[in-house]
Amino acid sequence: MSGRLTVVGIGPGDARYRTPEAEDALAAADALYGYAPYLDRLPTRQNQARCPSNNRKERARARSALQHAAEGTCVALVSGGDPGVFAMAAAVCEEIEAGPAAWRSLDVRVVPGVTAMLAVAARIGAPLGHDFCALSLSDNLKPWELIERRLDAAARAEFVIALYNPMSRARPRQLGMAFERLRKYLPPTTPVVFGRAVGRPDEQVSVTTLAMAEDSADMATLVIVGSPQTRVIVRPGRSPLVYTPRAAQGWPA
Amino acid sequence: MSGRLTVVGIGPGDARYRTPEAEDALAAADALYGYAPYLDRLPTRQNQARCPSNNRKERARARSALQHAAEGTCVALVSGGDPGVFAMAAAVCEEIEAGPAAWRSLDVRVVPGVTAMLAVAARIGAPLGHDFCALSLSDNLKPWELIERRLDAAARAEFVIALYNPMSRARPRQLGMAFERLRKYLPPTTPVVFGRAVGRPDEQVSVTTLAMAEDSADMATLVIVGSPQTRVIVRPGRSPLVYTPRAAQGWPA
Repeated sequence: MSGRLTVVGIGPGDARYRTPEAEDALAAADALYGYAPYLDRLPTRQNQARCPSNNRKERARARSALQHAAEGTCVALVSGGDPGVFAMAAAVCEEIEAGPAAWRSLDVRVVPGVTAMLAVAARIGAPLGHDFCALSLSDNLKPWELIERRLDAAARAEFVIALYNPMSRARPRQLGMAFERLRKYLPPTTPVVFGRAVGRPDEQVSVTTLAMAEDSADMATLVIVGSPQTRVIVRPGRSPLVYTPRAAQGWPA
Repeated sequence: MSGRLTVVGIGPGDARYRTPEAEDALAAADALYGYAPYLDRLPTRQNQARCPSNNRKERARARSALQHAAEGTCVALVSGGDPGVFAMAAAVCEEIEAGPAAWRSLDVRVVPGVTAMLAVAARIGAPLGHDFCALSLSDNLKPWELIERRLDAAARAEFVIALYNPMSRARPRQLGMAFERLRKYLPPTTPVVFGRAVGRPDEQVSVTTLAMAEDSADMATLVIVGSPQTRVIVRPGRSPLVYTPRAAQGWPA
């Protein structure tokens, strides 16, 4: 029997956010690998092994999953959101390139999912309705100077900016430093959306402005900083809508 | 009875790519609005009206859907991929802001979906594994000079670049002009991924380099241009994997 590794995106929350393609890949697996809280979201199945791991151990997790698949097992490696966005699919590719030649012959598949920025955007309107970028604020994998250079470039070119991994206990200052950087280029009234644990029971979504935005977040938070064109619609008795018009300023839609 | 408008992302292909949340919203609707080929992907239901429209008529379609919901109907407005990415959610917000005050009291929801760049990325590996941006090449809604400014900024800051709406019969030159612009900043060996109709029977995904990339695409095509760090893994007997490492060059992962 030949093995297979499927990197499966389970979306932002419970089963309502998982595609049938993801459900099928999970059901077909002999073994599930993944960060423990992601595995906890999935139903247990008879004859399916569970190999939970710590969040910091992406490369070791990818290696273990590849090794297990290379032994002839059907392995699913679970990722929150989409596995291709600041998640496990790239770690798997890194290990395939660095690993034994036999790993290049493995059947490796990636099943996409709804990534956090799409889920947060959907809750609040359409802040990503025009050109946008996605940037991880973690400086574990790149120098802070590079992050600043990208923040500068994105703000000056008026991209909407989705910030992944905004801060953590080990990195408490990154989000505040990013806001400070962006205030050089963007109006104080620029809308900023905080989305935490979207799709889960403790979901929280809020809107503020760049002038008022506080550096209060955690690794389950996704922050969207608008462009100068991003707008807020106040609604009586309902939460506001935040959106970025499809047309550039002064252009008819 | 009070109406509701749900803007529903149906993902890139058939029902395998639609979340249960999207299926529920479609099943609950009294009327479906959307671009005709998207509605054609959905099963017909008794007592559910279908209001297909032409692709160019986003604002009119959003207005009709809002008007119908304001009359007390449960309306689903269908979007391919994710409704918040170059799709209908922003058009709905534009019409709510410009329309009658009563529309601000409407129950409006957005259901996210798998957008094209995530589906194409999943097919080929993990090209979006590091910071990236999403840019529409259509100059129907913005000046070409602004698109060039954003291409310059994204390439210089080494974002991976996902190009939506790369070209069409009415806009045959945009993709070639974009490649030409990007060649000023990026190495000729930069991987370029073309993904067409991903998730559908006529799906086509191919890899080339920026030097070799031809301006041959249509509106169903999504193009991903790598960063200088994006890599290709050649595999015996299998299609190549394209990925962007999580760590910046020279940084340990």
